[in-house]
Amino acid sequence: MPSVDVLVEGIIKGDSSTLGRAITLVESNRKDHLEKANAIVQKCLSQKRDAIRIGITGVPGVGKSTFIEALGAQLNAQGNRVAVLAVDPTSTQSKGSILGDKTRMDELVKNPKAFIRPSPSGETLGGVARKTRETIILCEAAGYNIVLIETVGVGQSETAVHGMVDFFLLLKLSGAGDELQGIKRGIVEMADALVVNKADGDNIKKAAAAAGAFKRALHLYPPKENGWIPKVLTCSATENSGIDAIWEMIQGYIEQNKKSGYFLEKRKRQNRNWLYESIEERLKSEFFQNGNIAPEIEKFVTEVMAET
Amino acid sequence: MPSVDVLVEGIIKGDSSTLGRAITLVESNRKDHLEKANAIVQKCLSQKRDAIRIGITGVPGVGKSTFIEALGAQLNAQGNRVAVLAVDPTSTQSKGSILGDKTRMDELVKNPKAFIRPSPSGETLGGVARKTRETIILCEAAGYNIVLIETVGVGQSETAVHGMVDFFLLLKLSGAGDELQGIKRGIVEMADALVVNKADGDNIKKAAAAAGAFKRALHLYPPKENGWIPKVLTCSATENSGIDAIWEMIQGYIEQNKKSGYFLEKRKRQNRNWLYESIEERLKSEFFQNGNIAPEIEKFVTEVMAET
Repeated sequence: MPSVDVLVEGIIKGDSSTLGRAITLVESNRKDHLEKANAIVQKCLSQKRDAIRIGITGVPGVGKSTFIEALGAQLNAQGNRVAVLAVDPTSTQSKGSILGDKTRMDELVKNPKAFIRPSPSGETLGGVARKTRETIILCEAAGYNIVLIETVGVGQSETAVHGMVDFFLLLKLSGAGDELQGIKRGIVEMADALVVNKADGDNIKKAAAAAGAFKRALHLYPPKENGWIPKVLTCSATENSGIDAIWEMIQGYIEQNKKSGYFLEKRKRQNRNWLYESIEERLKSEFFQNGNIAPEIEKFVTEVMAET
Repeated sequence: MPSVDVLVEGIIKGDSSTLGRAITLVESNRKDHLEKANAIVQKCLSQKRDAIRIGITGVPGVGKSTFIEALGAQLNAQGNRVAVLAVDPTSTQSKGSILGDKTRMDELVKNPKAFIRPSPSGETLGGVARKTRETIILCEAAGYNIVLIETVGVGQSETAVHGMVDFFLLLKLSGAGDELQGIKRGIVEMADALVVNKADGDNIKKAAAAAGAFKRALHLYPPKENGWIPKVLTCSATENSGIDAIWEMIQGYIEQNKKSGYFLEKRKRQNRNWLYESIEERLKSEFFQNGNIAPEIEKFVTEVMAET
């Protein structure tokens, strides 16, 4: 493995295979890897980084990969360099791992201006979140100016991703009945936009109706602290329609929030929360894995399990 | 303040004013109070305690207080001694504090066989949960054989209460449309029974229909690990109807689970989780409040907030 300086140099040059190797260090749990990774992240932090970070969520089957493929292709065509990451703490348990099967993003994978990295596996949510955070920093230092972070729409990983992005997008399908059923209220509350995917063919009308229902339902939610009213749009990722309007909307949001100062304020707050979470995670793992403490706790566990 | 031994003696005799004073110690954040409280809890743990712990939740307006008043009165009439506690970490922020206004339980308050204690205030959920846990132990040592724990149906406090009770009951109202809307899915998943309250007068039909809808909706939920299928019942707390059937159902559940061994197994697991949560809470508070550490963290916070 090359030295820290060589790796950092490669990253800054935008060499994607060096970037990949550095991320492998970030994802490793070996102590020497951890130290090397920390040094790399530290050096990358001092690089110019001005990427926009976008979180994308939605339940399995909603078409996240196809959507990211379509959005990524358009962004690349406009001259952007796009990194696609994933946060999926379930990826080791289930076969439904997002981004695990890279072939689902045929075109993006082949594009030299895109970088795709599946979720670190075999980790708790806390572990995945830390690693993804640091991977974002490396990607930004490597010159990727748009980072898309995909997550599964079924658990707490949304909160983690929401805590590391500038814009959070919820993908939906049109369906019968109450359109917001089946999504946790908390996830809807986090979304800056709802996008109804698969608005194509016979489905166009249904998708439009679903978008209308979402708009009405969103009125029942409290307004965002920055005054933004979550937008509802439709698209067809497979037919590549509606993607441009989504990107325009996101750009409008970023512009507006940079002007108002909210963009920076949110980043600062995210950094602060992130620091506390990292400290807590480290504190707990070092405490509970400590060779003197672990057996003591085992004794207490035996005792309290005898109590009823 | 009397000595630990005097307080413990009073508790064991079932003296409710001594019990109240001991709980005040448990709820205090003063170091000397904490030590005294720990000693009292320790001694009470060795007492015979065989109370049934029941959690009761539901959104504001569902009639929790009236329900508890009706259930408590019936349990008292059958010779039980009932303690009513509350877990409401929001009680300092909002006026809607549960059990804060004791007059909402007119009859129960006057009954010498009942003991009512509002939620400890000015606390995080972790703090409220710890204090309520210890209060349960004191109440049981004081001879209360049924402990009802009320919580608001709007947040994470349900999970905390679910983690300290043998049976978890969700109160609901009949309403138009999708009957499970507005309740977090997680709360429904925790419930061992759903009870539709205010099934009286013109509302009887609607309540029965709501109960039917709940029953159907519950089919969509995964089965409980102990094989129990959550029951759906109706009642009118104000007219005191249906309360006896609810109590019979709870007794049936307890009996069945004691026989199968699940009752004890769940208690053991609750104790184990409880131990870990307590250790974590203490670990974090001692770390972050440490006089040497806190200023260092402040420095880091300033640094990361400069990063974007």
